[in-house]
Amino acid sequence: MSGASNARVVHGQPSHDPRATALRALAMDAVQKATCGHPGAPMGMAEMAVVLWCNHLRHNPGDPHWADRDRFVLSNGHASMLLYALLHLTGYDLPLEEIRNFRQLHSKTPGHPEHGLTPGVETTTGPLGQGLANAVGMALAEKLLAREFNRPGHAIIDHHTWVFHGDGCLMEGISQEAISLAGVWQLDKLVALYDDNGISIDGAVTGWFGDDTPARFRACGWRVIGPIDGHDLAALDAAIASARQPSGKPTLIVCRTTIGAGAPHRAGTAKAHGEALGADEVAATRAALGWNHPPFEIPAEIRAQWDARATGARRQGEWQTRFNAYRREFPELAAEFERRMAGHLLDDWPTLRAQVQQHFAQATENVASRKASQQVLAQLAPRLPEMLGGSADLTGSNLTDFPDAGPRHISYGVREFGMAAIMNGVALHGGWIPYGGTFLTFSDYSRNAIRMAALMKLRVIHVFTHDSIGLGEDGPTHQSVEHAASLRLIPNLEVWRPCDAAETALAWTSALDSVQRPSALLLSRQALPTQTRDAAQVQAIARGGYVLSAPAGARATILATGSEVGLAMQAQQLLAQQGIGVRVVSLPSSTRFDRQDAAYRAEVLGTLPRIGVEAGVTCWWGQYGCVAALGVDSFGESAPAPALFEHFGLTAAKLAARVREVLDA
Amino acid sequence: MSGASNARVVHGQPSHDPRATALRALAMDAVQKATCGHPGAPMGMAEMAVVLWCNHLRHNPGDPHWADRDRFVLSNGHASMLLYALLHLTGYDLPLEEIRNFRQLHSKTPGHPEHGLTPGVETTTGPLGQGLANAVGMALAEKLLAREFNRPGHAIIDHHTWVFHGDGCLMEGISQEAISLAGVWQLDKLVALYDDNGISIDGAVTGWFGDDTPARFRACGWRVIGPIDGHDLAALDAAIASARQPSGKPTLIVCRTTIGAGAPHRAGTAKAHGEALGADEVAATRAALGWNHPPFEIPAEIRAQWDARATGARRQGEWQTRFNAYRREFPELAAEFERRMAGHLLDDWPTLRAQVQQHFAQATENVASRKASQQVLAQLAPRLPEMLGGSADLTGSNLTDFPDAGPRHISYGVREFGMAAIMNGVALHGGWIPYGGTFLTFSDYSRNAIRMAALMKLRVIHVFTHDSIGLGEDGPTHQSVEHAASLRLIPNLEVWRPCDAAETALAWTSALDSVQRPSALLLSRQALPTQTRDAAQVQAIARGGYVLSAPAGARATILATGSEVGLAMQAQQLLAQQGIGVRVVSLPSSTRFDRQDAAYRAEVLGTLPRIGVEAGVTCWWGQYGCVAALGVDSFGESAPAPALFEHFGLTAAKLAARVREVLDA
Repeated sequence: MSGASNARVVHGQPSHDPRATALRALAMDAVQKATCGHPGAPMGMAEMAVVLWCNHLRHNPGDPHWADRDRFVLSNGHASMLLYALLHLTGYDLPLEEIRNFRQLHSKTPGHPEHGLTPGVETTTGPLGQGLANAVGMALAEKLLAREFNRPGHAIIDHHTWVFHGDGCLMEGISQEAISLAGVWQLDKLVALYDDNGISIDGAVTGWFGDDTPARFRACGWRVIGPIDGHDLAALDAAIASARQPSGKPTLIVCRTTIGAGAPHRAGTAKAHGEALGADEVAATRAALGWNHPPFEIPAEIRAQWDARATGARRQGEWQTRFNAYRREFPELAAEFERRMAGHLLDDWPTLRAQVQQHFAQATENVASRKASQQVLAQLAPRLPEMLGGSADLTGSNLTDFPDAGPRHISYGVREFGMAAIMNGVALHGGWIPYGGTFLTFSDYSRNAIRMAALMKLRVIHVFTHDSIGLGEDGPTHQSVEHAASLRLIPNLEVWRPCDAAETALAWTSALDSVQRPSALLLSRQALPTQTRDAAQVQAIARGGYVLSAPAGARATILATGSEVGLAMQAQQLLAQQGIGVRVVSLPSSTRFDRQDAAYRAEVLGTLPRIGVEAGVTCWWGQYGCVAALGVDSFGESAPAPALFEHFGLTAAKLAARVREVLDA
Repeated sequence: MSGASNARVVHGQPSHDPRATALRALAMDAVQKATCGHPGAPMGMAEMAVVLWCNHLRHNPGDPHWADRDRFVLSNGHASMLLYALLHLTGYDLPLEEIRNFRQLHSKTPGHPEHGLTPGVETTTGPLGQGLANAVGMALAEKLLAREFNRPGHAIIDHHTWVFHGDGCLMEGISQEAISLAGVWQLDKLVALYDDNGISIDGAVTGWFGDDTPARFRACGWRVIGPIDGHDLAALDAAIASARQPSGKPTLIVCRTTIGAGAPHRAGTAKAHGEALGADEVAATRAALGWNHPPFEIPAEIRAQWDARATGARRQGEWQTRFNAYRREFPELAAEFERRMAGHLLDDWPTLRAQVQQHFAQATENVASRKASQQVLAQLAPRLPEMLGGSADLTGSNLTDFPDAGPRHISYGVREFGMAAIMNGVALHGGWIPYGGTFLTFSDYSRNAIRMAALMKLRVIHVFTHDSIGLGEDGPTHQSVEHAASLRLIPNLEVWRPCDAAETALAWTSALDSVQRPSALLLSRQALPTQTRDAAQVQAIARGGYVLSAPAGARATILATGSEVGLAMQAQQLLAQQGIGVRVVSLPSSTRFDRQDAAYRAEVLGTLPRIGVEAGVTCWWGQYGCVAALGVDSFGESAPAPALFEHFGLTAAKLAARVREVLDA
């Protein structure tokens, strides 16, 4: 319970290895120039980085996309300057100017590492714990690809995943989800190096972090090496070499370090964590480390020690030779491997896509959209071998499995956040299109990983079933009210809430086509009526919103999504009997619809008074100019679904009445 | 990676203790009548429940609010029928009719237990893992209250917190956050009973849950008892008796059980988890257990064995006698204890509140709202001893601490979700008003616990600082874009985004007054200009939205929140120079504003064209009829805050230009 402390924790002294000192200098100088940032972790992990990157990491700065490179994840992303220094010094396309521009607008050196922006950054980190889970996903992807593509004598996919993390990552619960799965999956080419410096932002961690971390990892099926002195190059080298020896288990190396190592007064203190050292301490550090070079100046002989371009090119060349041999023996497999790693869908994908869309456009059976989703998967997944499904222990409810899925459907256990972050890692690795299911409400648990997928522009597909009060008896803890509206707020996340099988099929094919964007499919537990569409309407589903029905002389427009589209059509009938015509617009994906041109949007929304209906918060409809909306603005209740729709006033009669009120007003 | 399995896991055979059989019968019959629900866990935990509730739990069914009762948390909330059966049989006000109405609308027996609805339900559970964290919060509240109020010879607060949980809770990452803190806090009156049945929804857990759970808990500073046979009454009794012996550590009892124990064909299978047994299996279970009574009929002699009313009343009576003795010796402490447990603020709270509001209404210094918050705390917290602050390892950034906080400011470590769920437990226990801080973006991590607080109507206060791109250099992973809008969607959550010290003070006093509602305070990292208000405007802050400035002849209204109110006022000046008058409305709490009467809302919003401005998603403004809005609809960037506001077009000049565009359109 103890509050923040100012205690000092010194676990060891920095080496004077010039490569390590160069890292420390670049980190402290860049932070000092930016006047903000995190010098402590880079300075503490300098020797860990030297030994891993100079002696063990198999990478090629000249080709950050080499398929069989080792993956390196900096889970404690605030140590970004360590990674930037490593990328710069080993020869990635990250010139010194970018280091000087640390944390400035449009630089390639933002406050936390961003995948896609900076060559060699394998994942975006900062939100703690997720990098570790990303790494588990990468190691999983590697293991599954190796199983699928390697052949005796041809280990074309055979690399390690390395992750640096601090105690912050280990305090976050997601770390447990990740390490538990890594253990049970026996990801023996995953190696985590724990920067055990005993300090977090509030001070010495003893008051809030008392875990016996080695014992915890062993309990989850990991091999643990150390604790070792994290500043001792020889000890680090021996530990990493051991970790590369297969044990059938993932490996944790506990590296006891001093945060801010090298800074005479700040080392071992929380102040070293998140602020610039200040000019005096920078000078004192230079003196203590015997580093007499001006900021951002690295002597050529030290640069030469770091330069990994030649070695990297040679290693990749050796691999390419082996891959060419593989290609000669297994030309189809090799082509398939290259296709998969490039993230390209099959050549005949347009045909398959059209077939599937056509098939479900003609479906007539009234099924739940989660069931329709399973039917779509049954057609797609067997023919798209890159689809890697899964569920957070709700396979039979999410209906994410497909015939003969085998290892292509993963039981993640009850770990929504871990699943989402692992899927991000799988997508980052390449070779797979991951999708995974849980109840929509539990998207709350995984929310930040969904956000990270959107930020990283990853093709990850979330199957969120039981998407409203239609879930029924499980009650308000399980019933989504705000979740659809809330997910739609995340930039670059495509959200689909289909109303029947035709829209569900389009949502799936669209998600697979969305190379730069994660998708969330919000699916009903309950059966939904099938809507009738002409060919143009079937085409229009892909625009995210379209006119489903527009009788002549209509006086109002009902906008509806998902399970409430059927309700809207019923209300239309009721009103027709009363001589009132209304248009019905289906909005399966408002995020997609919002990207259509203004003319199309205006045409669909029309000029008549608009009434929105969705089994969720009604304020969401304001942005579409609705003058009234039916929905659920309180928490749900536990009862059979039909009783709930009645209780919350989500009936065709109530909707028709609301339309009449609007017209009479 | 293995997929769902149909393996059977049988850890033991059910006792034929009639009390246990009665629980099993009620559970299976209620589920059968509802045609849905979860029979497996109640049937598997029947003996655990018998021994804890009949031999150890100190409670009084006649007074579910007795301050010093033991707390019981069913973290695996899907086992709700177990809890309802226990409450009914021991004599709580939960008649048989409610058991018959399991999972029906307006019953007191919803699908998952709901606090506030059903007497004796200490917390709402269902979203897995959170119950365990709630229990940690309850035990923390107990420990801190005992430290504050107990006196030698007078242990007026001295009770246990018991929690049942399954493997699902342990797979969720939040369990790690909770057990880690329970360990380091040495919560030795917390006892968790693990229903170790080896089955989760997808089947036998071996493919996705391989943790050595006892070792994991020991690594976190827990005492572990067992594994024991969870159907062996004597073994359970001995284990629980041991757990009550102080060890300085929280205790885990590993109870090896069979899911659905008693059902001849379903026991040990995943099918027992989440569906009714079916008429045949119910009959077979009756035969196997020798239970010949019709559904919902419990023989009087078994009822008598369960009835805890007399014992409970006696125990509470004994406590009351001891409390009366305490009151005689420490009358002021006793009165204070009663006030605290009742959740009433001090008698002179209205005076203090007025003073604080007045003080900050006159503040002139331009400070960040997080700094203003700290200044408010410095005035409030020392005088409100029930305030229990904390931060998820960002104390110096969230500025949640206050002078001489001592044990009243908790370092939760980097555990946002755990912190939020623990705060819920603290609030549920009573005696404290918990508040805790993190960056707004990491509300993603804790989101479902915030939702649970809103569902349970708990007075819990979230301090979310660094609330926009104004966070600056840490970049998009840390910058909130969708979070303000997203939090406002959670029913019953009050969201404040104050623009200066006066609004910040009101937000705090309002949060303290909100007995039935959690609050989220969204605070800036950067300094904000102080606004000028007359007395009526100061008063109007409490309405959540008010006219901050309304020049004569205004032609448009700018609606703004938080850090953008200053921007709106600047734009107003620019436009005034061009002869264009605009009103400025400050909306510090749209959730509060939305509850004002229609006339007030209409008056504030006015009839002029409206332009909204907030450093977040612009679609949010649709519900207020804005014809234009300035904000941020993409992820942020890493750069100094002023550069970012410029980059994203959030400047007074751009806002003024937008207003002119609207007027010229």
